[in-house]
Amino acid sequence: MTTQVIVLNGGSSSGKSGIARCLQAVLPDPWLTFGCDTLVDAMPAAMRTASEGIEIADDGKVAVGPAFRTLEAAWIEGIASMARAGARIIVDEVFLGGPASQERWHKALKDVGVLWVGVRCDSTVAAGRETARGDRAAGMAASQAELVHQGVLYDMEVDTTHTESLECARVIAARVG
Amino acid sequence: MTTQVIVLNGGSSSGKSGIARCLQAVLPDPWLTFGCDTLVDAMPAAMRTASEGIEIADDGKVAVGPAFRTLEAAWIEGIASMARAGARIIVDEVFLGGPASQERWHKALKDVGVLWVGVRCDSTVAAGRETARGDRAAGMAASQAELVHQGVLYDMEVDTTHTESLECARVIAARVG
Amino acid sequence: MTTQVIVLNGGSSSGKSGIARCLQAVLPDPWLTFGCDTLVDAMPAAMRTASEGIEIADDGKVAVGPAFRTLEAAWIEGIASMARAGARIIVDEVFLGGPASQERWHKALKDVGVLWVGVRCDSTVAAGRETARGDRAAGMAASQAELVHQGVLYDMEVDTTHTESLECARVIAARVG
Amino acid sequence: MTTQVIVLNGGSSSGKSGIARCLQAVLPDPWLTFGCDTLVDAMPAAMRTASEGIEIADDGKVAVGPAFRTLEAAWIEGIASMARAGARIIVDEVFLGGPASQERWHKALKDVGVLWVGVRCDSTVAAGRETARGDRAAGMAASQAELVHQGVLYDMEVDTTHTESLECARVIAARVG
Repeated sequence: MTTQVIVLNGGSSSGKSGIARCLQAVLPDPWLTFGCDTLVDAMPAAMRTASEGIEIADDGKVAVGPAFRTLEAAWIEGIASMARAGARIIVDEVFLGGPASQERWHKALKDVGVLWVGVRCDSTVAAGRETARGDRAAGMAASQAELVHQGVLYDMEVDTTHTESLECARVIAARVG
Repeated sequence: MTTQVIVLNGGSSSGKSGIARCLQAVLPDPWLTFGCDTLVDAMPAAMRTASEGIEIADDGKVAVGPAFRTLEAAWIEGIASMARAGARIIVDEVFLGGPASQERWHKALKDVGVLWVGVRCDSTVAAGRETARGDRAAGMAASQAELVHQGVLYDMEVDTTHTESLECARVIAARVG
Repeated sequence: MTTQVIVLNGGSSSGKSGIARCLQAVLPDPWLTFGCDTLVDAMPAAMRTASEGIEIADDGKVAVGPAFRTLEAAWIEGIASMARAGARIIVDEVFLGGPASQERWHKALKDVGVLWVGVRCDSTVAAGRETARGDRAAGMAASQAELVHQGVLYDMEVDTTHTESLECARVIAARVG
Repeated sequence: MTTQVIVLNGGSSSGKSGIARCLQAVLPDPWLTFGCDTLVDAMPAAMRTASEGIEIADDGKVAVGPAFRTLEAAWIEGIASMARAGARIIVDEVFLGGPASQERWHKALKDVGVLWVGVRCDSTVAAGRETARGDRAAGMAASQAELVHQGVLYDMEVDTTHTESLECARVIAARVG
């Protein structure tokens, strides 16, 4: 089956967004990239701090409420429809719920060719990159580095600890059908 | 029919984004907001200057190529699916093609309750706000102010020339079913 | 004395930044614009939430610590030096301390031609624009609208409640010596 | 002499900004960080494309005009004054003019303790990171990688090709007097 969607799953500051942009540069067709930030930015400002929406604690832990889940479900449905309508899409995600998160995407994309990619990065290195970015709550990288991969099944994995985003993108692109 | 989608159409710097954020604040349910910027940001960097994608000339005129149209069609399909899946959505758009642009959204949203809103702003005032923002190509506001409304049909119109975004949002919210 | 520095003082969402960018567009010479955001962005990430630095409470109230004051004093010294070295500079400020804040700038700029401009905006209107921007802590606009002008002396005042940024900029530009 | 200013010089996408933020995190005192972007952002919008100001060509080459030089000279004077007034400052720079660029800073900072740091990155790796960032004109990284170091004298050099920003920052911090 033709790869219609590439799902990149990894913790904060693991390098997913950089890989997504490099994939757009190296893949011959034009691909769209959407991330969980796209969804969060689309939500009302009030939901970014409310218990119904998304909350980021001082230690970088992220909690998500029922109103968030409802909108997210519709969002995932929409991305699947875009793929069925012919767009090729890179999804840049953080599976905070591990296999339960993957299952949400899996169900919506069941009739679409998906390449599941785990983006790993050593926890200490990711935390250092978080410091270097300076725009994320300190602690997110460390708290998510292992958590988001537990119980998740991939077609392939890349590791940005010692490999540049562009090189990771080339390895992934070679697997796109 | 319940209003599931609010489409705001207006030229650059007419105040659509501000109205969208105010709508999110005054409407009782959580609404998502997506704009043409969301789609453009999702595209490969190369398409933002390529003749296949989107080009912004020195005078602020915007031209769009066939690859852009293909991805846009899938994007519109996806937004319609999100609405059918239960999300309430504000679309912040610039109908550069007038009625042809509206028809694209109209077809995709035919089984969904839509409130079509024209966002007008005096051309000179919009150009001044473009200068005050400082982040847009000079000339976009003036070239789009009238153009985007020609031949487009609305349920209602607001005019930001002398009315604040929040006030416009309240008038629109009162019409949401 | 030639006007070397224009100090715009007003509350959050009063329209200072928009006026500053319009001033840069209408004034014949090139002017630099620096705001309190320039200084805050230059500080370590940790100072933006620490009691030594700057803290923004949930109601939008801003508190500033001793380490912030030390760096701010050097910053003001530096801006004054740039002006003495020949640059023409627009300072976009929020005098949270009223006359004490003004005195800090006044001392540093005593041998430089300064145009002191109060930027007023009705508190309710500023709060609405804060909602429309969607990127500031809710409540800042209302809490600062009156506070920042108490006891401050101006050469002129503008009011953005019913007047566009560009028009305010033209009125200010006419007073630049 | 106490180190009052750290000057980081390197090409676009060499990792200077990340090192600067990490330095702010690891150094015990609060340091301010200013980059050439701070100055460019402070300039009128018109100067960012005008022949008097700064021009970025399609291949990423950067050209700078006489009006830019005048404002830059005042800016450098101001940074030096901030340091003499007691602020500790990290300057994140691109010496497009090589030794002539360094001489401008050297003259202004002659009575201040400066640590001159070269930030190197393999040209191909920097170009890949430019693609991963997706927000810079393609070609800047490659065209600047070697150019900005020619004839420039350093107290120390770091290389981000195989070393993380945080690790580079720790090595630099150990040399701060």
